[in-house]
Amino acid sequence: MESTVCTICKLNEAVYFRPYSGERLCRKCFIESIEEKTRATISKYEMFEFDDRIAVAVSGGKDSVSLLHILEKIERKFPKSSLVAVTIDEGIEGYRDEAIKIAEKNCGKLGVEHYVYSFKELFGYTLDEIVEIVKKKSLELTPCAYCGVLRRRALNIAAREVKADKLATAHSLDDEVQTILLNILHGDPLRLARAKPVTEEAHKKLVRRVKPFCEIPEKEIAFYAFLKKIEFQSNPCPYAATALRSDIRRILNRLEEKHPGTKFTIFHSIERIRPALETLAKKEKMQECKLCGEPSSTEICKVCEMLKEIIS
Amino acid sequence: MESTVCTICKLNEAVYFRPYSGERLCRKCFIESIEEKTRATISKYEMFEFDDRIAVAVSGGKDSVSLLHILEKIERKFPKSSLVAVTIDEGIEGYRDEAIKIAEKNCGKLGVEHYVYSFKELFGYTLDEIVEIVKKKSLELTPCAYCGVLRRRALNIAAREVKADKLATAHSLDDEVQTILLNILHGDPLRLARAKPVTEEAHKKLVRRVKPFCEIPEKEIAFYAFLKKIEFQSNPCPYAATALRSDIRRILNRLEEKHPGTKFTIFHSIERIRPALETLAKKEKMQECKLCGEPSSTEICKVCEMLKEIIS
Repeated sequence: MESTVCTICKLNEAVYFRPYSGERLCRKCFIESIEEKTRATISKYEMFEFDDRIAVAVSGGKDSVSLLHILEKIERKFPKSSLVAVTIDEGIEGYRDEAIKIAEKNCGKLGVEHYVYSFKELFGYTLDEIVEIVKKKSLELTPCAYCGVLRRRALNIAAREVKADKLATAHSLDDEVQTILLNILHGDPLRLARAKPVTEEAHKKLVRRVKPFCEIPEKEIAFYAFLKKIEFQSNPCPYAATALRSDIRRILNRLEEKHPGTKFTIFHSIERIRPALETLAKKEKMQECKLCGEPSSTEICKVCEMLKEIIS
Repeated sequence: MESTVCTICKLNEAVYFRPYSGERLCRKCFIESIEEKTRATISKYEMFEFDDRIAVAVSGGKDSVSLLHILEKIERKFPKSSLVAVTIDEGIEGYRDEAIKIAEKNCGKLGVEHYVYSFKELFGYTLDEIVEIVKKKSLELTPCAYCGVLRRRALNIAAREVKADKLATAHSLDDEVQTILLNILHGDPLRLARAKPVTEEAHKKLVRRVKPFCEIPEKEIAFYAFLKKIEFQSNPCPYAATALRSDIRRILNRLEEKHPGTKFTIFHSIERIRPALETLAKKEKMQECKLCGEPSSTEICKVCEMLKEIIS
């Protein structure tokens, strides 16, 4: 990028070029733009009440730590609201321990209470142990499949126990658009109806989830973290993501480069058809799992099904 | 594939393994299965009336020539129906000429009337000439973008002039699923509502299009053509497809290999949500283009817009 002046303040030297808007931004205006966009997303989707107790899911990665910093700043203006961080320790040796320390450190700096919940305590097994058993039994699912289901449950339990009204996750625009395509590739388009920036109130034991970063590109969150010198865990998970999601990420990034704004276009086009999909998607009747009592759309919940398969 | 007996007739040696159904098929049963599936698709979507005059769009490639062979066989049983082949000569040197000869030869063998319509006659330019001009003027669109719009128009004019009630194209399951994903990537999900196996009756000058191969994998059409020793053009178009469609094709094929049946799943999942999308998609009011009189959703049709840009 040729050195030039910030499009917004017309004062400082620009450090970031935003292809989809044509803006060149200085450090200060870039940081403000990310914080402002988060605020605007929260307001557009009515994510919070003024007196909400918000649990932020902090893994220790760049997205979740940045979200924590921004929400802490935003909520400072709402004295009746409160913020707490929850981290799930899946039990992945040589990976999660470091992330937890980083999450801890950030919370300390910001003065945010921090709670850690572990797979081991909640379910009896660490993810490492599950992967070991899965390998031995030649079960079909990938580590990510188990981790996804269990982490979702763990986050809900954590948010509920810390008495949060909302659970905020740091899913970025990229995550959301990748998930849209994955749902289509898996022949599950009705899931699009449920994957909203704010989930419905479906069951009293289910804490509503919100995604304040859903309209911010991952790249910009990373640059925000870099500019703010936020400390985060940058090693990838040893179990990595599925090949399919990586393929989709690559395609989307290539498309975005050629046609800036593509990710927004996809995201908003699905927003447009969501109301129609919602009329099709049967409202899932939430009941309580007969084994564990947690909210479930089936008699026995997915977590119990998975654990049964592992134990037996 | 280990040599084994046909799952269906339990007599002959199998020559094809169909991963998504687990069947192993002999030559005869494979051929019959493709013809039967085509028949079933036609009936499921009510593509034809017993007395329809059907124009088959025959490019000379494996899909369209196979479709011609199968429709000729099916329609033999409907004495009041009639079949005619139309080929569009886009004007691509060293490529289309050979394809036209092959289309011609196949029609001769089957006793089907054959009509060729060219871009040059219909629009004043061959595709080669258009590409030349586009390059000189540094216009933005790819050759495929021009060709797509003009060929669609040419096929409709051809079908109308040969007095066809329906225009059958050889789009395969693969084509349809790729298009679904392209529409999502282009932020145009409402297009899914319009890309049906049978188009609506939208304007008296618009011949309804049907896709009898929409539920048959491309690979199986190719194997059908091979087993039937059908002659077809196998060179790819020198202007090739877009990189994006090729990427999507690769992802889908990899996914299909890991999870046989994925393409069907995607296709049918979109079928399921289509009714909801149709309520969203405003019914396009078809009018006649003020310049050429052809059916158009806008005052000036896309063909005239394109030609204007080229001429000016």
